[in-house]
Amino acid sequence: MRIIRFYDHDGQIVVGKDLGSGQAERLSGYPFDRQPIGGVVEDWPVPESILTTGELFPIPDQRLSPLDPCNIFCIGLNYAEHAREGGSEPPEKPVVFMKPTSTVSNPGDPIRIPASQLNGPETDYECELAVIIGKVARNVSEDDALSHVFGYTCANDVSARNWQRNGGGGQWIKGKGFDSFCPLGPTIVTSDEITDPQSLTIRTVLNGQVMQESHTSDMIFSVRVLISFLSRDMTLLPGTVILTGTPSGVGFARNPPVWLAAGDQVTIEVEKVGQLSNPVLAAE
Amino acid sequence: MRIIRFYDHDGQIVVGKDLGSGQAERLSGYPFDRQPIGGVVEDWPVPESILTTGELFPIPDQRLSPLDPCNIFCIGLNYAEHAREGGSEPPEKPVVFMKPTSTVSNPGDPIRIPASQLNGPETDYECELAVIIGKVARNVSEDDALSHVFGYTCANDVSARNWQRNGGGGQWIKGKGFDSFCPLGPTIVTSDEITDPQSLTIRTVLNGQVMQESHTSDMIFSVRVLISFLSRDMTLLPGTVILTGTPSGVGFARNPPVWLAAGDQVTIEVEKVGQLSNPVLAAE
Repeated sequence: MRIIRFYDHDGQIVVGKDLGSGQAERLSGYPFDRQPIGGVVEDWPVPESILTTGELFPIPDQRLSPLDPCNIFCIGLNYAEHAREGGSEPPEKPVVFMKPTSTVSNPGDPIRIPASQLNGPETDYECELAVIIGKVARNVSEDDALSHVFGYTCANDVSARNWQRNGGGGQWIKGKGFDSFCPLGPTIVTSDEITDPQSLTIRTVLNGQVMQESHTSDMIFSVRVLISFLSRDMTLLPGTVILTGTPSGVGFARNPPVWLAAGDQVTIEVEKVGQLSNPVLAAE
Repeated sequence: MRIIRFYDHDGQIVVGKDLGSGQAERLSGYPFDRQPIGGVVEDWPVPESILTTGELFPIPDQRLSPLDPCNIFCIGLNYAEHAREGGSEPPEKPVVFMKPTSTVSNPGDPIRIPASQLNGPETDYECELAVIIGKVARNVSEDDALSHVFGYTCANDVSARNWQRNGGGGQWIKGKGFDSFCPLGPTIVTSDEITDPQSLTIRTVLNGQVMQESHTSDMIFSVRVLISFLSRDMTLLPGTVILTGTPSGVGFARNPPVWLAAGDQVTIEVEKVGQLSNPVLAAE
């Protein structure tokens, strides 16, 4: 199933099944309509509880991110060539950082250059396969890991490199956490349609030019390994999003460097999953 | 006002005003009963909208964390002596990291030693003043910053030092992110009762012995500065919690080091704000 979200004429959020004909059928029982609060997650609706309602909508151009994540984990340096282009050796364990949930933006919404950029242009793109957890995962084995996946979508792990490298005392949150720095979507493809998340081409296209192009088989740590690793003594709640890392070809590692600038259009493409396009706007 | 949460006899969460007599009066309009989803936060209830209802409850021993945060930002090395005891110079800018919301635990709930600890004992305590954002904050000035604070509570930024230092490729999320690693509470003291957050003593007591003792006037970056800094190009949503850093005296910097172990009782005390006590349990 391909799941999207958009506003209806009354400004209410519709969760719909994309029927592939320009129409969507409203779904009920979407597990991410509410956030896990109060620690009560045992009765969380599983994907099987999603029901179609028969109510049809034309799909508008403007879509929403397909969910509001409760936590966004990101994996650094998960493609060997990308680690090397940044001057690092491929890591022995997954390198985990986070993005605040306030970074999430919709397909088509502008990526905004931060007004507080550090020492000049620094805003960069990163194409990533995003994994959406659908069932509580804690201490899950690698063999069982994919059964906790609700689906997959596209993400752009937008990054302010000077803040990331020099402005955060070594911690990446500040450079990764500005508003609009996590475009997400436009579609969740449920996990029954992608049985092998390591078999997908992935690329970034900037103003029509391919900047990153790789394959998820090149991940150092597979989706199975990442979920098992993250879930050790740490509960992955439904609605958790895992950004699985980016391949080589990012802007900072180019000669000369390429920085996102007002007027750019950046598109993340993941095979079978979708295309996520966002324009770039100058700082407010 | 002093705000607490607990379960009623039916297992429903009550948000109450602590009347100081062992009784609490139910509140309505609590701004953190829901999470900010769908990007719609303009109509967020402000603290002034909280109403007392006249409905009284005896306060049970078992309380809940006073809110479910939407994002938890943490400030590293924000007391000069603590930076030095860890071998770092005091930072020039705030060092920002995060804890996943899944780390939050209740007053009295056990801190669990992770089964996956790295190279032996490593679990450490950190007393912190926690700031709760009540109104959307974006690009706020230092002068205006405190008007966005809903209130204050106590936090323990529990840390697995080997994971933090050696297991995360330099990123601290993994070592800071295990389940039960963010005890929070027991009370939110609203900001009208704490007009100067830099005037509070803060300490950690481990099994009756004072391990950390300092004063929030020793923060390198004050609460005002932190909110203004974090809010630059990054929206602080209502329900955001900021852990403002810990003073010297943590376990790893002692000779010999002191690690949390099963049977310990660790208490965080912040003047005028409260006492947060948690036992320590062995790994499951």
